Amino acid sequence: MKTKPKRNSWREKIHEIIYEADTPAGKAFDVILLVIIFLSIIFVMLESVKGLDPWIYNYMYAAEWVITILFTIEYILRIISIQKPTKYIFSFYGLIDFFSTIPLYLSFLIPGSSSALITVRALRLLRVFRILKVSRYIGESNKLIKALKDSRPKILVFLFAVIILCLIFGTAMYMIEGADSGFKNIPVSLYWCIVTLTTVGFGDIHPVTPLGQFLASIIMILGYGVIAVPTGIVSAEYSKSEADENEQKKLSTNTQSCYHCHENTHLDGADYCQNCGYPLNREK
Amino acid sequence: MKTKPKRNSWREKIHEIIYEADTPAGKAFDVILLVIIFLSIIFVMLESVKGLDPWIYNYMYAAEWVITILFTIEYILRIISIQKPTKYIFSFYGLIDFFSTIPLYLSFLIPGSSSALITVRALRLLRVFRILKVSRYIGESNKLIKALKDSRPKILVFLFAVIILCLIFGTAMYMIEGADSGFKNIPVSLYWCIVTLTTVGFGDIHPVTPLGQFLASIIMILGYGVIAVPTGIVSAEYSKSEADENEQKKLSTNTQSCYHCHENTHLDGADYCQNCGYPLNREK
Amino acid sequence: MKTKPKRNSWREKIHEIIYEADTPAGKAFDVILLVIIFLSIIFVMLESVKGLDPWIYNYMYAAEWVITILFTIEYILRIISIQKPTKYIFSFYGLIDFFSTIPLYLSFLIPGSSSALITVRALRLLRVFRILKVSRYIGESNKLIKALKDSRPKILVFLFAVIILCLIFGTAMYMIEGADSGFKNIPVSLYWCIVTLTTVGFGDIHPVTPLGQFLASIIMILGYGVIAVPTGIVSAEYSKSEADENEQKKLSTNTQSCYHCHENTHLDGADYCQNCGYPLNREK
Amino acid sequence: MKTKPKRNSWREKIHEIIYEADTPAGKAFDVILLVIIFLSIIFVMLESVKGLDPWIYNYMYAAEWVITILFTIEYILRIISIQKPTKYIFSFYGLIDFFSTIPLYLSFLIPGSSSALITVRALRLLRVFRILKVSRYIGESNKLIKALKDSRPKILVFLFAVIILCLIFGTAMYMIEGADSGFKNIPVSLYWCIVTLTTVGFGDIHPVTPLGQFLASIIMILGYGVIAVPTGIVSAEYSKSEADENEQKKLSTNTQSCYHCHENTHLDGADYCQNCGYPLNREK
Repeated sequence: MKTKPKRNSWREKIHEIIYEADTPAGKAFDVILLVIIFLSIIFVMLESVKGLDPWIYNYMYAAEWVITILFTIEYILRIISIQKPTKYIFSFYGLIDFFSTIPLYLSFLIPGSSSALITVRALRLLRVFRILKVSRYIGESNKLIKALKDSRPKILVFLFAVIILCLIFGTAMYMIEGADSGFKNIPVSLYWCIVTLTTVGFGDIHPVTPLGQFLASIIMILGYGVIAVPTGIVSAEYSKSEADENEQKKLSTNTQSCYHCHENTHLDGADYCQNCGYPLNREK
Repeated sequence: MKTKPKRNSWREKIHEIIYEADTPAGKAFDVILLVIIFLSIIFVMLESVKGLDPWIYNYMYAAEWVITILFTIEYILRIISIQKPTKYIFSFYGLIDFFSTIPLYLSFLIPGSSSALITVRALRLLRVFRILKVSRYIGESNKLIKALKDSRPKILVFLFAVIILCLIFGTAMYMIEGADSGFKNIPVSLYWCIVTLTTVGFGDIHPVTPLGQFLASIIMILGYGVIAVPTGIVSAEYSKSEADENEQKKLSTNTQSCYHCHENTHLDGADYCQNCGYPLNREK
Repeated sequence: MKTKPKRNSWREKIHEIIYEADTPAGKAFDVILLVIIFLSIIFVMLESVKGLDPWIYNYMYAAEWVITILFTIEYILRIISIQKPTKYIFSFYGLIDFFSTIPLYLSFLIPGSSSALITVRALRLLRVFRILKVSRYIGESNKLIKALKDSRPKILVFLFAVIILCLIFGTAMYMIEGADSGFKNIPVSLYWCIVTLTTVGFGDIHPVTPLGQFLASIIMILGYGVIAVPTGIVSAEYSKSEADENEQKKLSTNTQSCYHCHENTHLDGADYCQNCGYPLNREK
Repeated sequence: MKTKPKRNSWREKIHEIIYEADTPAGKAFDVILLVIIFLSIIFVMLESVKGLDPWIYNYMYAAEWVITILFTIEYILRIISIQKPTKYIFSFYGLIDFFSTIPLYLSFLIPGSSSALITVRALRLLRVFRILKVSRYIGESNKLIKALKDSRPKILVFLFAVIILCLIFGTAMYMIEGADSGFKNIPVSLYWCIVTLTTVGFGDIHPVTPLGQFLASIIMILGYGVIAVPTGIVSAEYSKSEADENEQKKLSTNTQSCYHCHENTHLDGADYCQNCGYPLNREK
């Protein structure tokens, strides 16, 4: 191969570990981070459960401190290892990382706010999407995303038709059944119609008059035929995307992220950033 | 290209704006109308909600007046901009447009009827279908409609089989469960069977005897196998229609509408009405 | 074409009208019979509804007499127009026809039994299957039936797997939830598991313990993945059967029924019964 | 064909009957065992039903003894007919066979434990999987399993996406609805979200606030689009596996099981164990 651009500093090394997933160290970092994020999510979930032993809450409070400190270190490293920190700080994931870190500090500053901060802590979930690049299933998920993207216009048309149908049938059911059967206004009736057409069928609201039950039967049979449409669309797109696979393979990207401009879409084998020309770090 | 037929009058210009969607003005008109229709539908929905602040109802009443006046102007323009107004007035969409416009005037003439007129105002929903031609997804929706049309005989056969199944199982469940379990007569039992076979499952009625639960299990497993059929049908048709796409492109229609005879199915590039030979207005 | 075998008698003419659907008279007969059967089914359904006006029951009682007399005439014609009446009388559809006819006579002989005879009258539904040959969608339904038949071994394997899954999860849920949550014994638990795996979800029984809800979540996500299997199977088979269509067209059957031996599977263009060699009646 | 390796002893004959399904005796053994296992499962199910006639419980107790003795004989035969019994005893199915046999003996030794042993007896269900090799649908089930295996990475990616979606929406619904609507903590809210996204919809928990119903509508419509994905995946894989069928046929395995090393994956026509070289018993 060509002569590689050399790595410049310890900051670039940290950058490579934190932002990329090509090196063993980068992969290990992502896996550890993924585990910590999932642990912190499980703690958020458990904290909402009432009636456990008190020592569990104490244990979780301690664990929350550990996680917060780890997130803080990571956040600082992310800032110092990049050339233009403001670009990261005000990016979507930069803000998510920030709000994932601060809840415990805030509850320390403003006593009594800890229960309200559960909302902010739940934002950590969104961090998972960034880490997903470590997944060895990345190729598969790309194909899935591509199939969904290609069928987006079709699915939008379909969803639009479904919503029009729901509006018409929802209004009709509101007029037929009325408030006594639970169809207390048109928005609720619309909600019921979506529940029915998607075959979920909670049963919290259901028709009781013969005419309402007749119309509901028509809606359900329609939903039965209609559920076939998105499946057919995705099936067709997916088969196509399977066929295009070979060509895609020639043009696959990796997790390389530019130290200079933060651009992270580069072809396999790229040695220089496609956006700013800065050399990319690559190890074999 | 060929020499274009010239536009004749301001009435033809209005006709082009209101009835077609090829020119920027025509597109803008359709988009604005779509927004107004959706606003009026949202107001109809909100009006059915009890217990909001009184000023909201006042605001909606004012908005309803604005919408009614706009619809009135549009209705008058539609009539004067066409050569044979009666053809429009008594067409399906002409009647929809008329009934979309009058409710507020009627409530003014007949005091106390405003709540009953919600039914008529809900008809405005149907106007959406006419405006849909503005959608840039029109090609996709054509493909969807074609796939559904082509699979219509298959889906009808399938629906007929489903209804026969429901009749047989509904009668059987009525005999097994009886009125005590909620299966109070055969139509209700049939309604339950459709709820179950379509996997909606409200739970308002459900079998309680062991034999009824056994039969219900068979119905559900059957429904499980049966739900695959329409999906398979639409999938196959959709793949076919994707393959036929190229040929379709050669024969695509636009939104040109004849000023003279109101015919609105014309091929791209047509300069004269295919129905009466009157020149079509086209701008590049 | 070849020389046609001549029709022999008025009995053969009646035979052709009643048993076949190739001639205009035969088609008309089938359509009328279909309408009468559906009317009689609607009367059976309505009779189960309590609380209608008394005159409706009187009207339906009269209509029931008319239908019974028509069915009686048809039954007698079916017997006298065939060479071997016993073959018809003890055939499946012969028995159905008989039991469709007698309920009212029985209620006349045995007073007070009319409500019990609703069961027998509901058998009339099965007559529909015989008449279905009149449908102009017969080709489509043949394709559907063929696709289902071809995928039968696969669907059986699939259903077997579903039942094993339900047995395992049903027993597990019975042990986790117990009688207090409605899982009062293993058969009921198995019923719940089928309700859940088929995504019907009545909600009459549902898990209440955290462990039960966790296992239920796994069952549901499994059901989500599993519902894809029959769809995939039928899709694949259906595409195949579409491809085989041309070859099928060369070998299509009609509704010719032999006057002599009652055999009713004959190729288009057959002039003699493929079973007994008796000439078939055909009109152009 | 080649000269066959000769069978050595009566123990090898028993081995062939019990462990293989190629000979008539082996097939008969498997069918009988399958019937006994299903009977024993039906007895376990019936025993959990309260309120039957006492004689049924007596009859089932007697039947349970017969089944236990048959299982004991089979277990002993399995041990003595194999060269390395410990390998069988501590294999997965060996342990299942052991625990399927002992419950009644244990209830004899420890009075009063019989109701607790229902758990252990339910393990017998797992024996069915071993016996399934007798099924004449084995080819079909292989294809199904292959299609599922091939689509495993895609389905895992999909399930991961579904779980992330459920976590986000579950947390959101917990915050919107709160404990009053039944969303008493995040795990329960997550359970509700899975119930909804899979379109099961029990209705034990359901949103009651307008905002909650609006978010639930979005979740349901999303679930509607999302249910298409696994179907598309399995469809595509299944079509592929159908196409690969011819090549698979060249490399099909049978139920031959090595008497010496218990290896049971051998190609059709193999005369010697592919693992240890010991001659395999084959009859024509």
